[in-house]
Amino acid sequence: MYFEDVEIGSSEEFGNYPVTEEEIIEFASKYDPQPFHLSDEAGKAMIFGGLCASGWHTAGMTMRMVVDHMKTKGRTHSMGSPGLDELRWTRPVFPGDTLRVKSSVIDKRASRSRPDMGSVFLHNEVFNQKDELVMSFKPIVLYKRRPSAPD
Amino acid sequence: MYFEDVEIGSSEEFGNYPVTEEEIIEFASKYDPQPFHLSDEAGKAMIFGGLCASGWHTAGMTMRMVVDHMKTKGRTHSMGSPGLDELRWTRPVFPGDTLRVKSSVIDKRASRSRPDMGSVFLHNEVFNQKDELVMSFKPIVLYKRRPSAPD
Repeated sequence: MYFEDVEIGSSEEFGNYPVTEEEIIEFASKYDPQPFHLSDEAGKAMIFGGLCASGWHTAGMTMRMVVDHMKTKGRTHSMGSPGLDELRWTRPVFPGDTLRVKSSVIDKRASRSRPDMGSVFLHNEVFNQKDELVMSFKPIVLYKRRPSAPD
Repeated sequence: MYFEDVEIGSSEEFGNYPVTEEEIIEFASKYDPQPFHLSDEAGKAMIFGGLCASGWHTAGMTMRMVVDHMKTKGRTHSMGSPGLDELRWTRPVFPGDTLRVKSSVIDKRASRSRPDMGSVFLHNEVFNQKDELVMSFKPIVLYKRRPSAPD
């Protein structure tokens, strides 16, 4: 799959990630040890209403679904990501939730400085099992351009 | 520390996070199992030049430095984050690197709909031990407003 094969307006849905209390606490212990990500009691004292996942953990679980999905598609000529825009955590993620992803192509642009590559602009939305949006963001992904046929 | 105490233009530097090969592989195995985050050989085959951390792992290490720093400051009236803008991964993060953070207040805005809170806009830059920028992003953080004195 080259830059030329990416279709603006197309979208895909994938993923089925079960969120567990054990994993929420394990991630938070290492990377986001705020009380409401570590115990149910502290979560109840906040607006969240109970133990909930670090937003960075939700991002990690989402990336895992993206990578697993990429692998089912075989070889893509993606060259990694320089970043993303407009990340929003819209609802808390709780133990027992199941997450899935909808990924839409919103734009693409050939590189002026690097004729062998182009940027693809996505809108990724993450939903729980109630179809509530829990996170959204707009990743930028670099793709190789299709090599020209020799003259 | 309330919304009123946050000073636009102020900045802080903190953190000293040693990046290890073991932790890079452990994080990537769970959340970003692409070959160049799992083995040195696969990293050498990419533009990165060797095993490097998932960008989401760099974000997690950064959050850990932020939380540890918050704890040294005592009680802040932060109410969590609705998201962030303009996240960029500018250089690979390698085993043996040591990361630190510079966090600057770029703007703040009182909420019109919620008179008890306001939004603070930060610019967080993450550097390695060579003072090279490896990641930057602009988090939005909600703060409680200082309760008014009774009339």
